[in-house]
Amino acid sequence: MKGLWLENNRLQLKTDLPIPEPANNEALVRVLQAGVCNTDLELLRGYYPYQGILGHEFVGIVEKGPQHLINQRVVGEINAVCGECRFCLGGSPTHCENRSVLGIVNRNGAFAEYLTLPVNNLHKVPDNISTDVATFTEPLAAALEIQQQIKIGENQRVLVVGDGKLGQLVAQTLALTGCDLLVIGRHPEKLANLAVRNIKTGLENELKERSFDIAVECTGNPAGFEIARRSLSPRGILVLKSTYAGKLTLDASALVVDEITVMGSRCGPFVPALELLANNRVDVASLIQARYPLIDSLKAFNHAQRRGVLKVLVEVSS
Amino acid sequence: MKGLWLENNRLQLKTDLPIPEPANNEALVRVLQAGVCNTDLELLRGYYPYQGILGHEFVGIVEKGPQHLINQRVVGEINAVCGECRFCLGGSPTHCENRSVLGIVNRNGAFAEYLTLPVNNLHKVPDNISTDVATFTEPLAAALEIQQQIKIGENQRVLVVGDGKLGQLVAQTLALTGCDLLVIGRHPEKLANLAVRNIKTGLENELKERSFDIAVECTGNPAGFEIARRSLSPRGILVLKSTYAGKLTLDASALVVDEITVMGSRCGPFVPALELLANNRVDVASLIQARYPLIDSLKAFNHAQRRGVLKVLVEVSS
Repeated sequence: MKGLWLENNRLQLKTDLPIPEPANNEALVRVLQAGVCNTDLELLRGYYPYQGILGHEFVGIVEKGPQHLINQRVVGEINAVCGECRFCLGGSPTHCENRSVLGIVNRNGAFAEYLTLPVNNLHKVPDNISTDVATFTEPLAAALEIQQQIKIGENQRVLVVGDGKLGQLVAQTLALTGCDLLVIGRHPEKLANLAVRNIKTGLENELKERSFDIAVECTGNPAGFEIARRSLSPRGILVLKSTYAGKLTLDASALVVDEITVMGSRCGPFVPALELLANNRVDVASLIQARYPLIDSLKAFNHAQRRGVLKVLVEVSS
Repeated sequence: MKGLWLENNRLQLKTDLPIPEPANNEALVRVLQAGVCNTDLELLRGYYPYQGILGHEFVGIVEKGPQHLINQRVVGEINAVCGECRFCLGGSPTHCENRSVLGIVNRNGAFAEYLTLPVNNLHKVPDNISTDVATFTEPLAAALEIQQQIKIGENQRVLVVGDGKLGQLVAQTLALTGCDLLVIGRHPEKLANLAVRNIKTGLENELKERSFDIAVECTGNPAGFEIARRSLSPRGILVLKSTYAGKLTLDASALVVDEITVMGSRCGPFVPALELLANNRVDVASLIQARYPLIDSLKAFNHAQRRGVLKVLVEVSS
C-alpha cells in the first residue's frame, strides 16, 4: 500500500508498504482522510525520534474487526495501551507506560491506505458528522483535555495565545464554558474567524499584563510562552498545549514569586468531542485550507508548513 | 543605627542609618537575631534589583506599637500589604500588587538594629520557643505553603530534591503528612540529619526515574529542576520552592507529553509554623552552623555562601 514514511527527518511516499495485519483485539481500518497536525511537523523536525508512517488525525472505515464495526465510519484514539500497567489501572491510560501512539511512537499512522488500532480505541462517527468534520475529532478532544484538568467557569479570565489551528479549537471549546475569553494572535484573518463566533480577539501588542487567571499557550514557541506567562495574575495557570521542538528558556523566579502553575496538556476525551461535532457546537470546517490526495502528501506537508496555514487534509480514499 | 546595606550587588555595613519611624499601623521592632536565607544570596547576585537593608527572617522585640505587643518577642510576615487591591480582597494578600517586602522589595530588612512592619504582620513568639528556634518561623512557613497549594496524603510518593536548609525544612514538614517521602542530596552529613528523624534519604544517582507523584525542587539550580522533572510519574507535580538567579532551560515537550504540572511556591502561613515549633514537631536548631554579630555580618554572608553550609545567624542584640 501507499504511505507517507518518516525516517531520519525525511519524508517519502512509499508505495510498497505491506497492508498491516491487525493483532488480537485490533481492527483494520481503511483510511478515508487524515489531517496534518503541528505534531507531525515537529516530528519531521526531530522532536521525537520516530520512524514510520506519520499521521494521527483520521477518519476511516473498518474492514476487519468485530461485526458491529465492519463497514462503519470510525475515528480512533491514538494511544494503544496495555490495560495492565499502573497508569492504565490508575485511570490514566493515555500515559500507559507500554503504549504505542498512532503515527508518533512505535505504531504506523494514518497517512496511508490502511492502519490498525485496538478495537477499544475506535468510535463510530454519527451519520450527521461529515468526514471533513470528523477528521477534527482528535485535535478537538485534545482541546477538551484542558477542561478535564482544570475547572473553568464563568468568572474566570482566560487567554488563548495563538490563532492557529490548535488555538482555534481551544478557543471555541473554552468559549462554551462561558468564561471571560480573549484570543490573541498575529493574523487578523484568523482572528476574524473567531470574532464571527462572538469570541473576543486582539493583537499581541494590545494585551494587558498580569490580568488573566488562565492562559493557554497554543503557539509552540518560546515567545508565546512568555506572552502567556506575562498575561497571568499571580497564582494563575499557564496551560502548555503545544509540543515544542527544542528547549524552552524561562524565568523560573517569576514562576516562584507569582506562584504560577504551568501545566502540560496532551490527549483528551473523544466522546464529548464527537458530541460537540454532532451538535454543531464548534465550527471546524472553516479551518480547512487545502486538500491533497495521498499521492501528493509531500505537497500537503509543504503546504502545512507555510506560515499562517490552518488545516491541510490528505484524502486517501472515498 | 547599624545595618547591612545592599546596593549595586555590593554589601556594606553602614553605621549611620536612621532608626526607622513606624508609619500608621506599623510597629518599631528592635531586632534580636536574623537568619541568612538563600534569597538574600540571590539578591546579592542580582536576582531582583533591590537596594536597602537585607534580611527577612528575624525575631525582635516591639518597642513602639500597640500596648499588647510592647516588649513582646515577635516574628513577622514579610509582605506589607495594602488590604485594598484585588489580591488582598481576593484572599491572596501575599500577592498584593502594592506590597513591599521586608528586605526584598522597597522595605528595609532585618540585618539592622531596628525594622518596621505593619502591626498585623507580627506574631508573638510563645515563651517556650527560643529565639534561635523562632528565627526559623519564616522559612518554615514557606515550607508549609506547599501544603496550602496541594493536598499531600499518605499514599503519595514525594521526592525532595536538595538537602540544604530549605530542603531540610520542606522534608520535615512533608514527613508530618505521612506521605511516602524520599530526600535526595549531595551531602551525606546533611542527609544524616534527616535520617535520624526517620526520613528516607538517598544520593542523586540512586534515584528511580518516573516514580514520584510530587517532587519539590529546593536547590535553586537547573540540575535540581531536571532531577525533579525526571523523577516524576506522568501527571506528577513539580513544586518550585527556590528562587533562581538567571534563567532555567527546560524540555517543554516533556512537560506536555507527561502532562506535568510545575507550580511556583513562595511565602506561607506563620500560625501553623509557630505551632510546629512550639510543639517541637520539627527540628531546626541542628541547622544552625554559625553565628556572627551584626558588626561582622559581612563575614556571616561569606560563611553562608560557602558550599554546603546550612543556617548562618546574625545576632543583633540581646
